[in-house]
Amino acid sequence: MPTLVLIRHGQSAWNLENRFTGWWDVDLTEKGVEEARAAGQLLSAKGLDFDRCFTSVQTRAIKTLNLALEEMGRLWLPVEKDWRLNERHYGGLTGLNKAETAAKHGDAQVKIWRRSFDIPPPALEPGGEFDLSKDRRYDGIAIPSTESLKDTIARVLPYWESRIVPELKAGKRVLISAHGNSLRALVKHLSGIPDDEITELEIPTGQPIVYDLADDLTAKERYYLSER
Amino acid sequence: MPTLVLIRHGQSAWNLENRFTGWWDVDLTEKGVEEARAAGQLLSAKGLDFDRCFTSVQTRAIKTLNLALEEMGRLWLPVEKDWRLNERHYGGLTGLNKAETAAKHGDAQVKIWRRSFDIPPPALEPGGEFDLSKDRRYDGIAIPSTESLKDTIARVLPYWESRIVPELKAGKRVLISAHGNSLRALVKHLSGIPDDEITELEIPTGQPIVYDLADDLTAKERYYLSER
Repeated sequence: MPTLVLIRHGQSAWNLENRFTGWWDVDLTEKGVEEARAAGQLLSAKGLDFDRCFTSVQTRAIKTLNLALEEMGRLWLPVEKDWRLNERHYGGLTGLNKAETAAKHGDAQVKIWRRSFDIPPPALEPGGEFDLSKDRRYDGIAIPSTESLKDTIARVLPYWESRIVPELKAGKRVLISAHGNSLRALVKHLSGIPDDEITELEIPTGQPIVYDLADDLTAKERYYLSER
Repeated sequence: MPTLVLIRHGQSAWNLENRFTGWWDVDLTEKGVEEARAAGQLLSAKGLDFDRCFTSVQTRAIKTLNLALEEMGRLWLPVEKDWRLNERHYGGLTGLNKAETAAKHGDAQVKIWRRSFDIPPPALEPGGEFDLSKDRRYDGIAIPSTESLKDTIARVLPYWESRIVPELKAGKRVLISAHGNSLRALVKHLSGIPDDEITELEIPTGQPIVYDLADDLTAKERYYLSER
């Protein structure tokens, strides 16, 4: 039976400061490091093991994966890093504190930006502090200036189909370390969650989510490993 | 100009205890962690950057790479891990303290095992504490029972030719984190060092070795980055 485990990265510095992060490359906090190590210890304790790992090109997800693999004695597993597993790009909200943004634009507007399925936040202004156009890791990629969840799904799923599905179909056990919204994209797809419900689904940091998949990769069961 | 940097992993627990390690998967010491971080800081400070990374499937080399990349803000670089970059397999000497081994077998014999080019140590006994035949990372691989430096070279160089040379020829800057003897294999090849001299070449832990290569990948210069 194909096994898939998803982990959202441990707490980041901007999770803690309640700032919109998106593609900005923020590191884990000490608590985030501990969450990542605990995830690896839990995976080992529950007897889960893997053949292939996937993550984004963002430090917080890569470090979460590396720390979990270290705890499992599995640093030697192959890891593929791809921007298509990145967090949703928050556009012009990047770097802003969520409470301050609500005070400025109103709770209703911020809720729309955070929770609507297909309305992206305002675009990131080019040339500003959070402009990534000179970041070498995105060379050759059309960096978005903002993304809705729908936009995020539109780049996560082709990656899922082309790179991860073949591994699962070949019987490989797969671990994915990624972000709240790139994981929402996968959970929506695998669990068939409607557009208006997926935006409300909270994916906690550092908690392994296990999918037991049928051979055709439809989800038989999804659960938090900590609850078993 | 193609750039290649080699790093031997930071100090491991068995470097410190002066035990033959080989393929046994020993972790870095605190000093080893600091050496790895310092290597990354030095690479950054000297303006070196990379496109592709290669390492063994041994924790001490992978962690050295990860720590250096973290210090460089380059955790997102692609990393390929392969057993052919592993340390030389020390056979039946694995786990033994070097001084005790000399006391038992005589200095001359131990020097032959450590320093001869083509005489391997006695084979590792199957079924013992250091038998790796059940280690999943080596599934499908004919694990050696012992290796001379010549044997090590015989599996490092085909990997170099098939996986690393094409990257360098494509203009990619390459960082390799590996082990004393797998790096001796590369240095012997690149710098044309004779059989009887390469066994005497000490490769210090955590010190980036820079190769400036001609377009045909012959070595124009080799130096320790810390000395520039």
